[in-house]
This record gives sequence, structure tokens and C-alpha cells, in this order.
Amino acid sequence: MSAFTDLIDDLVAANRILAAEDVVDAYGHVSVRNPNDPTRYFMARARAPEVVEADDIMEFTLDGTPIDAKGRRPYLERFIHGAMFEARPDVQSVVHNHSEKVIPFGATGIPLKPIMHNCSPIGHEVPIWDAQTRFGDTNMLVTDMAMGRDLAQTLGNGATALMRGHGCVVSGRSIREAVFTAVYLQLNAELQMQALQLGKPVKFLTKGEVDIRASESTGRGDDRAWERWCRRAGVPFKPQA
Amino acid sequence: MSAFTDLIDDLVAANRILAAEDVVDAYGHVSVRNPNDPTRYFMARARAPEVVEADDIMEFTLDGTPIDAKGRRPYLERFIHGAMFEARPDVQSVVHNHSEKVIPFGATGIPLKPIMHNCSPIGHEVPIWDAQTRFGDTNMLVTDMAMGRDLAQTLGNGATALMRGHGCVVSGRSIREAVFTAVYLQLNAELQMQALQLGKPVKFLTKGEVDIRASESTGRGDDRAWERWCRRAGVPFKPQA
Amino acid sequence: MSAFTDLIDDLVAANRILAAEDVVDAYGHVSVRNPNDPTRYFMARARAPEVVEADDIMEFTLDGTPIDAKGRRPYLERFIHGAMFEARPDVQSVVHNHSEKVIPFGATGIPLKPIMHNCSPIGHEVPIWDAQTRFGDTNMLVTDMAMGRDLAQTLGNGATALMRGHGCVVSGRSIREAVFTAVYLQLNAELQMQALQLGKPVKFLTKGEVDIRASESTGRGDDRAWERWCRRAGVPFKPQA
Amino acid sequence: MSAFTDLIDDLVAANRILAAEDVVDAYGHVSVRNPNDPTRYFMARARAPEVVEADDIMEFTLDGTPIDAKGRRPYLERFIHGAMFEARPDVQSVVHNHSEKVIPFGATGIPLKPIMHNCSPIGHEVPIWDAQTRFGDTNMLVTDMAMGRDLAQTLGNGATALMRGHGCVVSGRSIREAVFTAVYLQLNAELQMQALQLGKPVKFLTKGEVDIRASESTGRGDDRAWERWCRRAGVPFKPQA
Repeated sequence: MSAFTDLIDDLVAANRILAAEDVVDAYGHVSVRNPNDPTRYFMARARAPEVVEADDIMEFTLDGTPIDAKGRRPYLERFIHGAMFEARPDVQSVVHNHSEKVIPFGATGIPLKPIMHNCSPIGHEVPIWDAQTRFGDTNMLVTDMAMGRDLAQTLGNGATALMRGHGCVVSGRSIREAVFTAVYLQLNAELQMQALQLGKPVKFLTKGEVDIRASESTGRGDDRAWERWCRRAGVPFKPQA
Repeated sequence: MSAFTDLIDDLVAANRILAAEDVVDAYGHVSVRNPNDPTRYFMARARAPEVVEADDIMEFTLDGTPIDAKGRRPYLERFIHGAMFEARPDVQSVVHNHSEKVIPFGATGIPLKPIMHNCSPIGHEVPIWDAQTRFGDTNMLVTDMAMGRDLAQTLGNGATALMRGHGCVVSGRSIREAVFTAVYLQLNAELQMQALQLGKPVKFLTKGEVDIRASESTGRGDDRAWERWCRRAGVPFKPQA
Repeated sequence: MSAFTDLIDDLVAANRILAAEDVVDAYGHVSVRNPNDPTRYFMARARAPEVVEADDIMEFTLDGTPIDAKGRRPYLERFIHGAMFEARPDVQSVVHNHSEKVIPFGATGIPLKPIMHNCSPIGHEVPIWDAQTRFGDTNMLVTDMAMGRDLAQTLGNGATALMRGHGCVVSGRSIREAVFTAVYLQLNAELQMQALQLGKPVKFLTKGEVDIRASESTGRGDDRAWERWCRRAGVPFKPQA
Repeated sequence: MSAFTDLIDDLVAANRILAAEDVVDAYGHVSVRNPNDPTRYFMARARAPEVVEADDIMEFTLDGTPIDAKGRRPYLERFIHGAMFEARPDVQSVVHNHSEKVIPFGATGIPLKPIMHNCSPIGHEVPIWDAQTRFGDTNMLVTDMAMGRDLAQTLGNGATALMRGHGCVVSGRSIREAVFTAVYLQLNAELQMQALQLGKPVKFLTKGEVDIRASESTGRGDDRAWERWCRRAGVPFKPQA
């Protein structure tokens, strides 16, 4: 994978950052599509994100088959990632996490909506996927492509979806964008919970405000957040290419 | 105890991990049954879990008598552990803690139920033990086998029970399983509190979902969490045997 | 003060511990009565508790006059301490703090009551003092003995009192007991707030449970907590004499 | 800028402190007026506050034009600062932040009021500015002087204002005062949220109490907090001149 040094460095950094920001605990994962072959993607072996290293990164076909496992055990839920890459050619990176802030919204069915400008990448309203609806009682894990595709359908053209009793999925046009959206999805959940507890009507961002922000590049802003997150996670900072 | 090096290492690690994850403060303890003699168990002397070392580990008979105290003072509440080992041959490890997240549920009598897949080891519904019911006004500590047995009866065949105005008890088939369940019991309490504050009906895991997860080994998953917890607690990680 | 090495070490440790446990921020202070002269007490100069050193410790008469200031500026609110020592010969140590957990109770007038066994030293119900009642509009600081005595009267024979819009005061028979009570007063406030948010009646400790615990020595238990707190605050641990 | 060594050191420290106290994340900024030329001010280039260094400090005219950019990219929202300096000759320092504690109040329109004595510098009641009111759907950023002036008008003669769906702005007569007010504005939001969740009427500071505190110098107190904040942020402490 020496051809992908920068990409793998970003993927390792993303693992460490998501852990440092409490978006993932021992579980949860982040992937990136192979830029040279859109039918493949990179993701760590089954290991806690905060200890992931470059040697843990494996390559998979979209159906979740490892290219060269070298004895490494993959995440059981890698189908979340392959199904998203299959359904959405524009998506280059996927994060799946169990952030404790989003669980209460999945469990109560209250839709998350952007309450703060930096949270607008989550989309106008975050849909909720429930494995029960089509698969009945399961172990709640997305362990095959059928479940992954059903989840991808809930996400549709959006960037994010909650998973009832489980967590959420976030997509982006780059690793850094997916990480940004995952961090601010978590923050939006925390802010919205606090606002709802105040017992007064909440003024969310208007549709127009969200659309205007979506139409602008957030690329430059990313570097500012990425430098800080790298520092907090103890990984070297590389400015955006 | 040189015959039990791995077991004692795990027990020391468990003490440090429970402290690092804020499951215990200066109080609370974790024990493991002697694998060579089911009528005995190991547990630290009366010391804050985050400073426990191998030399602090004592051995006890199920009634709480130290085998060779060497001047070390035992926990007053060791009867919680002996009574659980006595009542439940399948239980190999017991955690007692005062996690601040579970206290509000014990005080209000609201039953904890799994709200997230990883929390399913807590069981379908966590029972609440109140020392008042059978023992009236006390100092609220489980200071003899009669109280320990009463508590064990509340736990029954389950893995967890809350103790009103005090904390909770968690059991497992191994140290690592007990630690896992203790950490996720705490997380479930936090998540359920937040969900209840949102003021809408909460969709907990179904009975079927909990049963399916209970029927599967969580053994491999433990290694992933255990490695991360060791790192956070500053103790060496040993892969599962 | 070389005759008081252990006492001053404990007082410095108490400053650092209260800061490490978030009981104080830049403000708040802790004092100890001179064991050789009950009409005098020791307390740091006006400095944030987490940076207090032995050389910062000053001696005062009960009316707040420094014995030998050596150019050091005392806390404006030292009268809280002197008035408590004057009114209560049994009190050897006083903590004043602005813990953010207790402020909401002072502001709403909801009485704090022990919700967990370790919190029983706060007493059956924590009274609330309001500077407005006798002194009208002020800068809210206890800047003379008249205000200190009024506050001491609210405390009466108890161990703790809240101060509306300001914080609280905690007393103890030793530095370690006062620190213990201050930490668990803060914890009780946090736990009681969470329990009240669950919207069901809260079962606090019974009068009998609190009385039984008050009748027992908590001295040995203190060492367990004190060792852990010293470690977290980065100060050397000295076992209780 | 060698003539401004102390001022620039304070400005760098302010950046680090606001980050260490979670008042800012990757976004938010702090400025200071040039004491030799009231038509100019200093502020960092577009970088996360916790990594700002002396070489990042740029100088601007009040309309936001960099004096000597040296290739450094300025914050897009520098107009918040220039407009405040233009409208208020008494203001020497401005903080803009997205503290997560204040967002729920901006979103629900509940006015923040001082609930604790140290929070009185926020003023009797914090006004809320909504970019929608005069500018309709925007990207919510204050990207020109027209928006900055509108915001400054909401602030009026006060020290603070919230910005709906965005954050807040804080002003002070010095860097240290602005930082103090920003930290305690955040704390007030947290305390007021908890108090409101208790469901009883809240007794805020009276008008008289706030006025009395405003009439007193808080200068000496600042050193106590500033020393602690410097230590927590890992920057050298310089006593106030």
C-alpha cells in the first residue's frame, strides 16, 4: 500500500481522532474507498480505533471480501461500508460509531436537526434505521450485504443516519469530511438534548441556512479542525494536499 | 499465588480499569473465584482500586475468612462476593461498585433495561435490592453473609442488580466479562437517563434481541475492549488465552 | 510552623485535592484550626487552591487578623472560617467552595438530602443561607465577622450549608473529614439532580440510616479515599497518624 | 510587534486558555486593540486557538484589512471584532466563541441571567442576536462590517451577546477581563440549565447585587484565576502589571 501513504496516514489519524473525541469507544470503524479502484476500500482489522496502526489496514472488495487478509480478522460489520460505497459513487469515506450522544435519539425516534452552523453537514433531518423493521429480532449487527443495503437505502442521498439501539453511520467525500461530520453529529445530539430539556420551542437552522452552507466548500475550514484534532489525538498533522 | 500469575494480573488490571473508566472511585471491588478450588476466591485488601497491586491480593473462603491475611485488612463488604460465588456456581467473577450513573435508578426504582446492543449483558431488566426491606435501618453495608445471601437472591439467575442508596453488583463467567458488563451497565444508565429526559417513549432492545445476543459468545469482542481499557488504565495488555 | 509539618502538609494536600476533584476552581479555600491554640487557624494566602504551597500558609486569629502576613494578601472571605471556629469548638477544619453542582440547589431552594450512603456526612438536610435575608444587596462576599456569624448560625450544629448564588461551606473534625464531606456533598448534588430529572419520587436515606452512619467512625475509610485523592492531585500520600 | 511583547504574550495565553477551558474548539477567536493606535487591533491568523503562537498574530484596521499579512490567512469573521472596537471605545478586547453551553439558550431564546456571583460580569440579561432578523438566510457567519455592526448594536453597552445557532460574543476592558467573562458566561449557562431542569423558580442575582459587583474592581481577583488558567493551559504565568 506504499502508493497510498497519505491516504493510509489519514485513515490511521481518523481512527485515533474519532477515539480521542469520544465518537468511538472500543467499537466503531472508519473506511476510505481506494482512489485507484472504486470497487475496493480500506479499513482496519477488528481492533479498537484508538490503537489502530498502519499495519492494521486491510483492503476489501465492496462485498466485504478481504484482498489479502494475512491472518488479520476483519470487522463483522464491514458490510455497512461496502453497501454505502456501492450505493453512493460520491461517497469516499464512511464512519460507523456508537456515540453515546446519538443513542437516545435513535431510541426515542426524535429527529436530529442542525441546531448550530457547524453541524449543518448532518443534513436537514437525520433519518433513523431500525433493523427490526425488515429483519425482526437479530443480534442487531449489520453482518451481511442485505442489511448493509437496507441501511444505505435509509441514508439515501444524505450524509448521516441513526441506527436504533446501536449507533449511527456517517459518509463523506473524504476521510476528513466524514470525520468532521461524525464529530459535529455527536455535538449536535448533545446540544439538541440540552435545548430540548429547556422545555421551550427550539429554533433550528432554517432550510435555507443549511442549503447555503452545503453549497460552500468546507475544505479550508477542515484544516483548522484537523490540526487541532491531530494534536489532541497525538498524531502528526499533515496539511491538506 | 505464583500458580495464578495470569489470573492475578487480570484481577489487578480489572481494578485499574474499573477506576480508569469511573466505575469505581475509592470504594468498590472486584473478585475472582479460585479456578482450582471453587470454595475460595481472590480479592484485594481494603484499598482504592486504582492503586491496587499484585501484593494486595488476598484469598478468602466463601464465608469471607482470609486464608493468610499477613496483616492486610480486607474489604468490609467482601460478603457480597462470597455469597454470589456460593449461590451461583457459574459465576467466576464479581464486581461491586458505586457508579454514580446507577444511583439515580436505585433511588427512584426505575428499572434499567438494555437501550443499546452492547448493553444487553445487563439482562432484560435489572432488579433493585433494598437493605431496608429485610434488615431495616443499617449502615447500608453488606457486612455479613445473611445480607450477602439476601442480595444474591435478588440477583437470582441474572448478571446484575442495583442496591438502593448504595450502588450495584455485577457478575460474570470471567473477570473480563464482569468488567465488560460493569462498564456497559454504567453506560446503559447514562443513556437511559438521557433518553428518559427527552420525554418520549423509549424503544429498548426487544426480548428477542437480548436473548439472541446472550446466546452468542462475546469472548472475542472482549479482547478488543480489553486492549483499549488496558491502554487507558496504563496496564500491560495480555491477549485472551 | 515547623511544629506543624504534618498539618501543613495535609492543608496543602487538601488545597490540591479540592482543585483536582473540581470542588474549587480559582476561588474557594480550606482552613484548619491551630491544634495548640484554638483561637487561631491556618489558611493559604489569596491564591488558587491548585497552586498553593506550604509557604503560602498564613496564621490568623479568629477575627481574621493575620499573625505575621509577611506581605502576603489574605482571602477576603476568611471570616467564613473564623466565625465557624468561634461558634463550633468541635470544628477543626472548614472548606468554602463554589462547586458548580451545588449552585442550582441554592438558587432553587431545593434541599439537598443524602441519596447515597457515602454522602450521609452532609447531614439530614442541607440548610441554605442567603446574604439578602439580613444584609440586603451586597457584593455577596462574606467580608466581615457579622456575615460570617450569620452564616455559622444557619449551619448550626450541622456539617454543611449552601449559600445562595455563591456556593457552600463544609466543616469537619479534621482536614480529611472536611475534604471528604466537601467531595461527597458535590457528588450528592450531582446524583440528586439526576434523580430529580427522572421525574419519580426519590427514596433518600432514612433518618435512621443517616444516624447509624454518623455514629460510626469514618476514620479508616478516609485513608482509602485520601490515598487515591493524593495520587490524582499529584501530592505525596501520608497514612493517617 | 516587539513593542507589544506583554500584550502579545497575553493574547497567545488567552487563545490557549480559552481552548483549555473548552470555551473554543477549532473555531472562535480573541482580539485586543492596539494600545498605541485605537483604530487597529491584533488577532491570530485563521488557526485553532489551542495551537496559536506569537508568529500567528496579525494586525488589522477596524474594517478588517490586514496591515501586513505576510501570506497569513485571517479569520473570516474578524468583522465581529472591528465592529465592536468601532462602536465601543471602552472595549479593549473581544472574544467570539461557540461554547456548547450557550448554544441551547440562543436556540430557545431563554435569556441568560447571573445565577452566581462570579458570573455577574455577563450583565443583567444577555441579549440574543439572530442573523435572520436583518439578513435572512445566510451562511450564518459575520463576514462583513454590516453584520458586525448589527451584532454590536445588539450588544449595546453590555459585555455579552448570544448569537442564535452560532455562539456568542464577549467584550472586556482588557484581554484578561474578556477571558474571565467568557469563561463565566459559559459556566452561567451550564448552571442555569441545571437549575431550570430542577423545575422550580430560580432566584438569580438581584439587580442591586449585579450593580454592586460591577462597581467594584475585579482586577486583583483576575490574577488568581489567570495564574490557574495559565497553569492548566501550559503557558507561563505573568502577574498583572
